Amino acid sequence: MVAIANNPHRAVIEHRVRQVVYQRLGKTLPQTAMAPNPLVVNVSARHCHLTAAAVEALFGKGHTLTVHKWLYQEGQFAAKETLTLIGPRSRVISNLRILGPCRDINQVELSYSDAIALGFDIPLRLSGNIQGTASGMLMGPEGFFELQEGVIRAMRHVHMHPADAAFYEVKAGSEMRLKIGGDCGLALDKMLVRVDPGFKLEVHIDTDEGNACNLQPDTPCELIR
Amino acid sequence: MVAIANNPHRAVIEHRVRQVVYQRLGKTLPQTAMAPNPLVVNVSARHCHLTAAAVEALFGKGHTLTVHKWLYQEGQFAAKETLTLIGPRSRVISNLRILGPCRDINQVELSYSDAIALGFDIPLRLSGNIQGTASGMLMGPEGFFELQEGVIRAMRHVHMHPADAAFYEVKAGSEMRLKIGGDCGLALDKMLVRVDPGFKLEVHIDTDEGNACNLQPDTPCELIR
Repeated sequence: MVAIANNPHRAVIEHRVRQVVYQRLGKTLPQTAMAPNPLVVNVSARHCHLTAAAVEALFGKGHTLTVHKWLYQEGQFAAKETLTLIGPRSRVISNLRILGPCRDINQVELSYSDAIALGFDIPLRLSGNIQGTASGMLMGPEGFFELQEGVIRAMRHVHMHPADAAFYEVKAGSEMRLKIGGDCGLALDKMLVRVDPGFKLEVHIDTDEGNACNLQPDTPCELIR
Repeated sequence: MVAIANNPHRAVIEHRVRQVVYQRLGKTLPQTAMAPNPLVVNVSARHCHLTAAAVEALFGKGHTLTVHKWLYQEGQFAAKETLTLIGPRSRVISNLRILGPCRDINQVELSYSDAIALGFDIPLRLSGNIQGTASGMLMGPEGFFELQEGVIRAMRHVHMHPADAAFYEVKAGSEMRLKIGGDCGLALDKMLVRVDPGFKLEVHIDTDEGNACNLQPDTPCELIR
């Protein structure tokens, strides 16, 4: 398992620079610069979470996931291992990325564009809440694994440290709004707040949402109540 | 050429019913019901517009497009004919729908999700403004047609009759905002206004935008200045 150091997200650098510049100039910080943490907005492309048992069924007895790239949330990573997802009409998506570490449920997160292309009818669900959702078949180099349920579109959400929740005056389960600028800007409603002392401030949207507004690292984003 | 009568869009029926009900009850019409025309929001899936010469190159000498389904805008139709689009990495999209009637330019409209899947780097453009945009290859049953340029993502826009423009107090080139409700609602900025006496009030968004908010026929939509 090799840890690859990621470059910091542009939003992180900008936040630090903004704070230092205003301090040097002896000026009052604007609202966004006063936030305890930078606002990082990332697009979650299609991926899956697996149990250790599913990893073994797909990649062989005793196999564990290897780190391809560390994600912004502490301890989370994109694995080197990928899968093929087989949809209800035998259409496939290959190179479906696995995110680690292993969880206690199996879950595939697709965009609606992915789901339509594959012929899946998937519900919008909070990650982890997979009861009664779509089934599917995963194929790995060493075997198949049938998901009885777990194929969903993940609800847009924001990870927050309690300090972020205090700054934005929200709590776990609150809904916020994310304004995204640019040539095809938009505002996403019902951005669900998730709070945990282990979380770093980060919005997760899917590829449909990211492509609708052409989200780039330098696209201005604002999180509002 | 056979004309297939489409069922009216749900928004059209609702608008008429709303007007009649308020009149019967002798109540003042709410703002939305006072609009001269219903607000129809449609998703434009990937498609292309072709010149008569391109149609002949692809489908054979003397071939003209046949109507598969009439669209909401008067005289516009989805053709029975479809094409294969070949991207820069030899990846293809098959069954690319042609919209008729023929135009004086060739233009392929894709979502960013489509473009990424095919390996195209496409710009966001107003339909018809294709100078310097991406090139591509079209394949039909009778031949190939090389597009030197014309592969774009079309800017979100709203077609309006002058009466609609007067009601919303906008003009050609204005930018509006479209609020879309539901479980994953959003508001699309920079909705470009196009005005013509031949237009019916209709918003066109692409599949990324439509899937981002899961637009359905009964999803509430509001067009605001």
